[in-house]
Amino acid sequence: MKVYDNKNWWQFLFLITKSDTLSKLAPLILLLMVYSLGVAYAELHYFKVTADSWVKNLPQMHSLLSFVISMLLVFRTNTAYDRWWEGRKLWGQLVNTSRNLAIKIAAVTDSKDEEIRKFFRRAIPIYAFALKDHLQSKQTQYSLHEGEIEGLPAKVDVEKHVPNQIAKSLFAKVNLLYQGGKITGDQLIVLNGELSAFTDICGACERIKNTPIPYSYSVFIKKFIMLYTLTLPIGYAYLLGYLAAPIVGFVFYVLASLELIAEEIEEPFGTDENDLPMGKMSENIQRHVGEILE
Amino acid sequence: MKVYDNKNWWQFLFLITKSDTLSKLAPLILLLMVYSLGVAYAELHYFKVTADSWVKNLPQMHSLLSFVISMLLVFRTNTAYDRWWEGRKLWGQLVNTSRNLAIKIAAVTDSKDEEIRKFFRRAIPIYAFALKDHLQSKQTQYSLHEGEIEGLPAKVDVEKHVPNQIAKSLFAKVNLLYQGGKITGDQLIVLNGELSAFTDICGACERIKNTPIPYSYSVFIKKFIMLYTLTLPIGYAYLLGYLAAPIVGFVFYVLASLELIAEEIEEPFGTDENDLPMGKMSENIQRHVGEILE
Amino acid sequence: MKVYDNKNWWQFLFLITKSDTLSKLAPLILLLMVYSLGVAYAELHYFKVTADSWVKNLPQMHSLLSFVISMLLVFRTNTAYDRWWEGRKLWGQLVNTSRNLAIKIAAVTDSKDEEIRKFFRRAIPIYAFALKDHLQSKQTQYSLHEGEIEGLPAKVDVEKHVPNQIAKSLFAKVNLLYQGGKITGDQLIVLNGELSAFTDICGACERIKNTPIPYSYSVFIKKFIMLYTLTLPIGYAYLLGYLAAPIVGFVFYVLASLELIAEEIEEPFGTDENDLPMGKMSENIQRHVGEILE
Amino acid sequence: MKVYDNKNWWQFLFLITKSDTLSKLAPLILLLMVYSLGVAYAELHYFKVTADSWVKNLPQMHSLLSFVISMLLVFRTNTAYDRWWEGRKLWGQLVNTSRNLAIKIAAVTDSKDEEIRKFFRRAIPIYAFALKDHLQSKQTQYSLHEGEIEGLPAKVDVEKHVPNQIAKSLFAKVNLLYQGGKITGDQLIVLNGELSAFTDICGACERIKNTPIPYSYSVFIKKFIMLYTLTLPIGYAYLLGYLAAPIVGFVFYVLASLELIAEEIEEPFGTDENDLPMGKMSENIQRHVGEILE
Amino acid sequence: MKVYDNKNWWQFLFLITKSDTLSKLAPLILLLMVYSLGVAYAELHYFKVTADSWVKNLPQMHSLLSFVISMLLVFRTNTAYDRWWEGRKLWGQLVNTSRNLAIKIAAVTDSKDEEIRKFFRRAIPIYAFALKDHLQSKQTQYSLHEGEIEGLPAKVDVEKHVPNQIAKSLFAKVNLLYQGGKITGDQLIVLNGELSAFTDICGACERIKNTPIPYSYSVFIKKFIMLYTLTLPIGYAYLLGYLAAPIVGFVFYVLASLELIAEEIEEPFGTDENDLPMGKMSENIQRHVGEILE
Repeated sequence: MKVYDNKNWWQFLFLITKSDTLSKLAPLILLLMVYSLGVAYAELHYFKVTADSWVKNLPQMHSLLSFVISMLLVFRTNTAYDRWWEGRKLWGQLVNTSRNLAIKIAAVTDSKDEEIRKFFRRAIPIYAFALKDHLQSKQTQYSLHEGEIEGLPAKVDVEKHVPNQIAKSLFAKVNLLYQGGKITGDQLIVLNGELSAFTDICGACERIKNTPIPYSYSVFIKKFIMLYTLTLPIGYAYLLGYLAAPIVGFVFYVLASLELIAEEIEEPFGTDENDLPMGKMSENIQRHVGEILE
Repeated sequence: MKVYDNKNWWQFLFLITKSDTLSKLAPLILLLMVYSLGVAYAELHYFKVTADSWVKNLPQMHSLLSFVISMLLVFRTNTAYDRWWEGRKLWGQLVNTSRNLAIKIAAVTDSKDEEIRKFFRRAIPIYAFALKDHLQSKQTQYSLHEGEIEGLPAKVDVEKHVPNQIAKSLFAKVNLLYQGGKITGDQLIVLNGELSAFTDICGACERIKNTPIPYSYSVFIKKFIMLYTLTLPIGYAYLLGYLAAPIVGFVFYVLASLELIAEEIEEPFGTDENDLPMGKMSENIQRHVGEILE
Repeated sequence: MKVYDNKNWWQFLFLITKSDTLSKLAPLILLLMVYSLGVAYAELHYFKVTADSWVKNLPQMHSLLSFVISMLLVFRTNTAYDRWWEGRKLWGQLVNTSRNLAIKIAAVTDSKDEEIRKFFRRAIPIYAFALKDHLQSKQTQYSLHEGEIEGLPAKVDVEKHVPNQIAKSLFAKVNLLYQGGKITGDQLIVLNGELSAFTDICGACERIKNTPIPYSYSVFIKKFIMLYTLTLPIGYAYLLGYLAAPIVGFVFYVLASLELIAEEIEEPFGTDENDLPMGKMSENIQRHVGEILE
Repeated sequence: MKVYDNKNWWQFLFLITKSDTLSKLAPLILLLMVYSLGVAYAELHYFKVTADSWVKNLPQMHSLLSFVISMLLVFRTNTAYDRWWEGRKLWGQLVNTSRNLAIKIAAVTDSKDEEIRKFFRRAIPIYAFALKDHLQSKQTQYSLHEGEIEGLPAKVDVEKHVPNQIAKSLFAKVNLLYQGGKITGDQLIVLNGELSAFTDICGACERIKNTPIPYSYSVFIKKFIMLYTLTLPIGYAYLLGYLAAPIVGFVFYVLASLELIAEEIEEPFGTDENDLPMGKMSENIQRHVGEILE
Repeated sequence: MKVYDNKNWWQFLFLITKSDTLSKLAPLILLLMVYSLGVAYAELHYFKVTADSWVKNLPQMHSLLSFVISMLLVFRTNTAYDRWWEGRKLWGQLVNTSRNLAIKIAAVTDSKDEEIRKFFRRAIPIYAFALKDHLQSKQTQYSLHEGEIEGLPAKVDVEKHVPNQIAKSLFAKVNLLYQGGKITGDQLIVLNGELSAFTDICGACERIKNTPIPYSYSVFIKKFIMLYTLTLPIGYAYLLGYLAAPIVGFVFYVLASLELIAEEIEEPFGTDENDLPMGKMSENIQRHVGEILE
């Protein structure tokens, strides 16, 4: 995610950034403009379309369907944004859960017991880093603690589901504390919400990552945009002549941009400019948990 | 659900997959086009509609109603998508609940007690498989455990509600552990959330499966689309002549496709291409629970 | 709710069921068509409206307002559907809660103690039946158990709030088990969520039943539809002549149908075709609870 | 809230109730109609606008902006309704919470201990009455109990936040029972959810009451409606002559009504016809709690 | 947030407040009007555009795209308002949590133990003040208590995350009470919800503050508005002559205002007129907590 100054409108008109849809769509827009010029030339010079021609009333259909296409694109935009925002909320919950667990561990355990604090100071932020790598399909081997802690593995097994192993270690450690009498049953219950939340967050992120919008909608919207734009110059050539070319290009730019941005936004766990800054958030978790459990 | 490369726009224009609405609607579209040609022929050659004719202003009505029809279809699309997404969320919760239960069982029970682990390694994923079969109205007999466990049936009874029996066995097993002193009361409370969640998820999936959109809306939308499309060529034949036929076909294709996709999406537990990959998700649950409880 | 085959489009065009809005609106539609014919006759033969007349531009206003009216109707449709779906969710929760309570009771109590099982096998489904009757303003006297159980009334008092009495008996029974040492405090906490849920569901259903959409909206939408349709033929008579009559009828049919369906849907606890099958759901609860607690 | 028969459409056309927006907007509508007549007179007789005049194309702008204004009004309508419905839900929760607390108190305390029952039979419904008065900025002094209960004040202090004091007394009383050994710790946990809910509901109602829609939107929507309507007759006078006056009046009536209803709805705790029947709901709570704790 | 009388419509027409978008957009609007006059002059006197010219049909494109632009702006408005309202809800929760914690502390601790009450009377409202300063990036040093309390720092460290430190102190203090036997384990569980809520609220506010709408949408909407408005006078100059200038200005005012208000609203934790009155709310928390714990 790029931080920017929102205020200068002119800047946005001429600014063409790497992530801009204009640069991505440029080849297709040019192709459509050439096609529109061809259609206009054919109608004006070859078929010699006149006011009697039926073709001049074709834009009626485009008006009729303009509502449907607009609403479909808004549906697309809304669902894509909802996924993106849900992804952001889940990572916000991860921050909260990490902090709350650290605050509670700091309170319920003996502040002199450096070994407990060390474990959680290390294991809590690792969950965030591991989830980030898991969502980006990276395989990283994390060591959970130095030295030997009975019943806890020191390293994760990259062949298996990594965040699950860290969640399991966290829960196992808390249970060891409970069985060893270092925390009471009431305190175990108090810690339970945070411990379950890690796996809930992981599963919800996986859901967003693995489930795109239904295939039927995805295909239908693209097909509709293409058919709509390809038939547009046929009627416009009579009304607007060669001006039809830039207009068709502009209409396609608007419609296709919305589809393109939606595609980019709906999977927020990648490394695009619009994707969530999971690396930075993981570092924040590390810093804050470190502060709390120091 | 089919995984595909989203990026190639041209591909989508010409691609006609099995699930494409175009192939499903083709007969009706052709019929409508023939009908439109008939209307156009009648108006142009038989009735000889002229600029004085009132019929030429009929498209005014279609413009007026184009907002209503668009919005109805968006309402339809939104509600269908919401059901689909809720179904997906429920199965995501099933994944989370299965993992969390496995993680907690792994932590609170003795890691040497192979019999407990064996039971949960088997019973947790079976819930997912049984729910899948239940939602697809299949009757499968599952054996919950080998050998004899006091108070637990070894097999489900396919005449009764299958997921309920597995949920009951899970709860009964946890209660046996509690009564046998293998887990404490605090740990019972900690496990309670996950145990209740199974049945909540099952009930919510049944709700989506058994409750289509109200009959009145379903009938009204279809009736509206048919009346709208059937009256369209009457006015368009004057303005667009024989061109009315492809246009009416295209308008119907767009409107009916949205209704058709919505119908397919709103019940996400079938075996269509857009339906949820419940089989694959159940296998994932099996693998992950196996990893955690090994 | 009627189960039907969704696939045949032609069927929907000609099908006129009892619940169809067409039959309900028929008298008003006919009246409006006669009125429109009168307006058309007056304009064409009496006032002899010509192209100079201002009246011919009146449809401009109807175009301008067509967005507002469409959006209002979508707002109406969305809120009505949300209530209907919320009602369905609440009854889905009732199913889940009944099952979960039965599963937990089956697990935590002695499977030989037939008296406890008998009580819950009877009392849990009665809550559903009582809620159904309560929402449909029927007064039915239920007997909760045969024989004498200390501290529990055997019959409900139909003069008082019936579901409350059953919820109270359920909670009282669980508390008796707790005080008698048949369940532990931890198990009491585990049962608490389900026991509270019954009353929450009842209150939420009452809220939907007792609170229609604000009076102002209801009046305004109806007034707007009537004024919009009554002024429509004035402008259309010039453009469309006697064709204005079927068109005005069709526009009114579409607009008023949406309002009519919304009215029917927004209170889902009646006995209309679109209303929730509460009786069937109650029977399902009875069967499933019976299976679990047998 | 007024209960009414929804079915008679004609009634709604001619019915002008006290709460009707028509009577509230009448002066402004009349003023706008006079203004429109003035504009029409000036254009027709003074400026003698002809078909060459640019002014006749002004309605193009109004068409272009009609989507924006419709959508803004729908946004306004949706947010106002959401607040109203949230307010209703909160009061529904208050009903549920009051009933559940009464049911639980009835179950966990000795049914012979009349003093406990008396306290809750009085204190629970008083919360509802006090919240109603608090939201309507009334100051009423409630006495919580007769006689002396150690640690509980007998009367509220009207200078301070009244609902807080009642919530505090409820919690204090429950805690007294716990400390006096009349309820166990497990039962205290079971009662905790209801006790916290009172204050959560109160705070959420205060939020709705104290936070109108952002000032910027409120100003912008009104300004937009006024500018839109004031420029409307300029273009319409050429097209529609003196007919512009009733049309401008009607358009303003529709747009302003939506804004007006939204304003009325968004604060649902007053004493308007559309506001929530908090008094009646409080009495229901009193009756039901009385039935349960008798 | 400014409190105002909503009723006077005329006032809103002429009122131009500091926060009004009109004053902010004035320079750009003037520039666009001058540009439009230039375009109109060029077309009318230089190019002498006639009825044959293709340019006169350009507004067709603007009609076609007016739905898309309206819907994009509504999407923008909705998401901005949702953030604003979510921010308001979070602060409402902070009020509730603070009150509930105070009520519970008042009930579960000895009312004679002035030291405990003093601590919470001070520490609970400080959380609100600290969160306000944290969200506005101010660094304030708070002292949590006077005198020495074992295990609790007396001052916060402004170099670290301030709200976290206060949440940690609150949890540590409650845990001290638990370990010192002043509250029981059941009471600890009862207090847990409120203690976790503080950090959840803080994290959610940080999420809203740190995550603007995706960059792609922000750029695209602004670019679309600029291109739409800049091409508008080209077609309008033929239809509306010099009138195109005020019209283009008005259209831009409407479109850009919505974007501008959305930008202002979407980050509700600043010090703008539309931003949340966090200072006042913090003071209310202080007063109410003081009343409860006095």
